[in-house]
Amino acid sequence: MGRRRASAVSLRSLGEFGLLARLAAALPRRGRGLLVGIGDDAAALRLPAGRPLLATTDLLVEGEDFRWETADPAAIGWKALAVSVSDIAAMGGRPRYALVGLAVPAQTPVARLDALYRGLRRAAAAFRVLLVGGDLSATSGPLLLAVAVLGGGGRRLLTRAGARVGETVWVTGRLGGSAAALAALSRGYRAAREAGGTGRGRPVPPAVAGPLRRALARHFRPRPRVQPAAALTRRGLASAAIDVSDGLAADLAHLCEASGVGARVERAAVPVDAAAAALGSWLRSDPLSWALTGGEDFEILFTTSAPPATVRKALAGTGAGRVTAIGRILPRSAGLTLRHPDGAQTPLRGGFEHFRRARGFRLDRRRPVR
Amino acid sequence: MGRRRASAVSLRSLGEFGLLARLAAALPRRGRGLLVGIGDDAAALRLPAGRPLLATTDLLVEGEDFRWETADPAAIGWKALAVSVSDIAAMGGRPRYALVGLAVPAQTPVARLDALYRGLRRAAAAFRVLLVGGDLSATSGPLLLAVAVLGGGGRRLLTRAGARVGETVWVTGRLGGSAAALAALSRGYRAAREAGGTGRGRPVPPAVAGPLRRALARHFRPRPRVQPAAALTRRGLASAAIDVSDGLAADLAHLCEASGVGARVERAAVPVDAAAAALGSWLRSDPLSWALTGGEDFEILFTTSAPPATVRKALAGTGAGRVTAIGRILPRSAGLTLRHPDGAQTPLRGGFEHFRRARGFRLDRRRPVR
Repeated sequence: MGRRRASAVSLRSLGEFGLLARLAAALPRRGRGLLVGIGDDAAALRLPAGRPLLATTDLLVEGEDFRWETADPAAIGWKALAVSVSDIAAMGGRPRYALVGLAVPAQTPVARLDALYRGLRRAAAAFRVLLVGGDLSATSGPLLLAVAVLGGGGRRLLTRAGARVGETVWVTGRLGGSAAALAALSRGYRAAREAGGTGRGRPVPPAVAGPLRRALARHFRPRPRVQPAAALTRRGLASAAIDVSDGLAADLAHLCEASGVGARVERAAVPVDAAAAALGSWLRSDPLSWALTGGEDFEILFTTSAPPATVRKALAGTGAGRVTAIGRILPRSAGLTLRHPDGAQTPLRGGFEHFRRARGFRLDRRRPVR
Repeated sequence: MGRRRASAVSLRSLGEFGLLARLAAALPRRGRGLLVGIGDDAAALRLPAGRPLLATTDLLVEGEDFRWETADPAAIGWKALAVSVSDIAAMGGRPRYALVGLAVPAQTPVARLDALYRGLRRAAAAFRVLLVGGDLSATSGPLLLAVAVLGGGGRRLLTRAGARVGETVWVTGRLGGSAAALAALSRGYRAAREAGGTGRGRPVPPAVAGPLRRALARHFRPRPRVQPAAALTRRGLASAAIDVSDGLAADLAHLCEASGVGARVERAAVPVDAAAAALGSWLRSDPLSWALTGGEDFEILFTTSAPPATVRKALAGTGAGRVTAIGRILPRSAGLTLRHPDGAQTPLRGGFEHFRRARGFRLDRRRPVR
């Protein structure tokens, strides 16, 4: 059966089974441990013996997590897989298999779904994940992707719950890039197609075109830190970890709550993304606020009692980028605070939460952040 | 933190994390093979060594798969899990763990979500499944459940692809009950709350109240055939299997396509649900059409070369209900046909497919079905 051009077909003419066949056509049929893949009632997989199975799921919802006005469907396909891969990374594991549930409005152009799956396939190849099953449904509402990722755990499990008082808080990479991109998109600025955007919108001054492109890459094509977290786990260096998806403040709060501890973050140490810094000047926004509460950077936040040199050596060559010690674990009673260069401390709060219109930007300003 | 009464709270006041805590509060924290459950980045699970992992996912979408006007939220919670458990059953496996993705409109009453999770928990207990993780998102559209179920395969895998020419086609239980209930609901008849409905709608004549209740139980509270399929697999009796979700005609077509064969079904042998037969007289609909193309009965359709006595003995005591030989596997060139009592044959077609407005009732009538 030949694959017809997207412009020549509609969802109604394809039907559910025709669309399934179309989207599954380009997927690999064989792979490591794959006994039965797409096309049966369930996938059958063979995992390495003796290691725990890791499993996670995430929803990506049009209108909540992305908008077609600004996002290239291929970027959304990539991101839908990346966010769950990041959860597996945060447990110190390696992603292996994914199931994709897709709810599609009947009027969706087939070309959009082709692009979405192109992005999914590219991400699957990049993260060494096999797409082994899924479900397809019509919906009267926004397009929705529900991705479940299965992975293999390391010999040790890296949870949120192991942080101890006196340990150091570290983070991989730099923060705030994704939120900076979102701020530019929300103000109507154009995102180039090669950066995951649609190429529509207000023109961008040449001076910030480069930073915006780099920030958009963080927002639309996140690269979860699988290797760094696996290296930490293999060496038993990290006591607790979480990926930065809701924002540093919110995710550190999750880690502290699970561990029954508090923490203090040094404002001067927070590694602000250079692109976010450049875009902050342009958009007159505080890039530190993006870094602390913006979320979706998909870096790994972890705690350790190991000395800095040991941590840096363990992460060398794993693609973790710069890794930074940003604070210290304190007793629970100390709460969660940000220490400013002048020694003053303010509560560290904010971050994304569904049902509350509060994506980022809630840095507590009882003391001005200078 | 006390759990407040549903009527006293809104999603906005709870927020995402408050809702997560509320819904997860009543879930078991421990269970077979559960290393890390809800509340971390991913679940960590220990599966029995040497058996394949089975994984499947299904979407349940408000407006497509159910409507709040007719469905009790607890029934939808039950069904959301049951449909994926049925996929695991159809592979001859046993369900173990589930991940639940929930997209919720912001104005959803919290009491509805409490009930939904009550149904999920009851189904989890009934099917011996642990809810180990999930995701929660707001949506501007209909409520959507994305359930992924992980299970353990048997020593043999039961796929759709093993049917051979000359084998007999069997089905567990009886068919058409779910479609009969849907037909009554779509005509505005009242479904009692204890049968999974809302108690709203047109009154039902006393003579059909019992059959309607039994049909509604098939529709709203399906019980996947885990034990029967596992028994067939353990004894190596079935060569191929599929669960009846899209309708006997469509699902047999899937099985035949995967196996590269054709099949002939004996019209007189198709086990029509007694409740469907009673409702068919009342609603002036053909219960055979419901049985052939209605879908969502979640019985197991399987093929075997074993003699009838062997099949019946293997399934005795597994809760498979009546099991019926309904036809024969033929060469692919024979296609898929229905043989009528007078010996005439018609194509066997129809069943549910998304994006095509064609839930059931497309039995080919080039020859009248008497």
